[in-house]
Amino acid sequence: MPRITEQQRTQRRKQILAAAREEFTGNGFHATSMDDIIRAAGMSPGGVYRYFAGKDAIIAAIAEEVVGSLSATVDRVLATEPAPGFADAMSELVTRIDEVAAGVGRLAIVVWGEAQRDPEMARLAARQGSRIREGVTRLVARAQSSGELPPGADTDAVAAAAFSLLAGYLVQQRILGDLDPASYAAAVAHLLTPAAAPTPKRRTPRTSAVS
Amino acid sequence: MPRITEQQRTQRRKQILAAAREEFTGNGFHATSMDDIIRAAGMSPGGVYRYFAGKDAIIAAIAEEVVGSLSATVDRVLATEPAPGFADAMSELVTRIDEVAAGVGRLAIVVWGEAQRDPEMARLAARQGSRIREGVTRLVARAQSSGELPPGADTDAVAAAAFSLLAGYLVQQRILGDLDPASYAAAVAHLLTPAAAPTPKRRTPRTSAVS
Repeated sequence: MPRITEQQRTQRRKQILAAAREEFTGNGFHATSMDDIIRAAGMSPGGVYRYFAGKDAIIAAIAEEVVGSLSATVDRVLATEPAPGFADAMSELVTRIDEVAAGVGRLAIVVWGEAQRDPEMARLAARQGSRIREGVTRLVARAQSSGELPPGADTDAVAAAAFSLLAGYLVQQRILGDLDPASYAAAVAHLLTPAAAPTPKRRTPRTSAVS
Repeated sequence: MPRITEQQRTQRRKQILAAAREEFTGNGFHATSMDDIIRAAGMSPGGVYRYFAGKDAIIAAIAEEVVGSLSATVDRVLATEPAPGFADAMSELVTRIDEVAAGVGRLAIVVWGEAQRDPEMARLAARQGSRIREGVTRLVARAQSSGELPPGADTDAVAAAAFSLLAGYLVQQRILGDLDPASYAAAVAHLLTPAAAPTPKRRTPRTSAVS
């Protein structure tokens, strides 16, 4: 077999994951086999197994795509100096969740559904959900240190509520499909800082808010 | 066939719905047939079809159980005089969502998952989700009238964020399974009214908060 470049490897990996996402979203994780994914990717079995040992490895890689980008956003916000306010940080995360909702977010909700009856999916969903929430917890703790949120509040519980603002956005975008991310982000800021009440502003293009 | 009392009718209807919930949660809506439900209910086909014309009617009845109780809570809060504060109203809804999460909430998340690939499920989920959010929108509008929330804020967008605090609770309780409803409700109050910062209090027994 001819040697392939790193770029080609990355490209093929992407191709397999894109095909798998389509299959999983259309038929669910349980009902999708490696044969389905191989056929959808238009590759040979050997070509696919070279990148992923099996369905579980593919699912894990997709989960990593979704959650990795959100975690990276939290990390970046936490590393920004001077530190943005809590409401601004949340707005940025809403923008990122909106991007997720438009793409792989559909699959995230399929995972939640299957997690209700499949222990393996339940473990995956719990692990990835915890990872995002831990990042939000660090944001909340920082906002408490700076006096932006009440220092006496239960950090974990406030982080859970803040996490809900993200998870609930995904649910509404995928179920009701009618949210404008900029208006929602402004509303989150309203709720988080009623006294400040910033004027909602539309942000276009969408990517400008996360660059 | 002997005549049965209204009480017996209610009892049998409940028996069918309980059996259907188990089947739907275990196997998903798509893979569950009327025969499965009839077998699980331990009744004759005629006995089941007397109450429900088919699977869709059963699904609609279950959705009504979940969403009807939440809508009723919103209606009751809106009818209460003197009007409770927005944070208190949200706390009460969190308590109700916690009850839902412990029971039929699992099924709600299965519905969301199947809604990602089944247009009929998508319509059901959208209809029921909208109904809850409309109630929350009325709560937000009232809080804006009373000056508790900024009158200039986008009512619908703030309602979407408040709705997220409920939907996100359900997701976390069913995926991460580690939330204490009283702490969460207190955190929601913290987020909604940072200045007020009430002391979190544990409410036991759980039902005392919604009576």
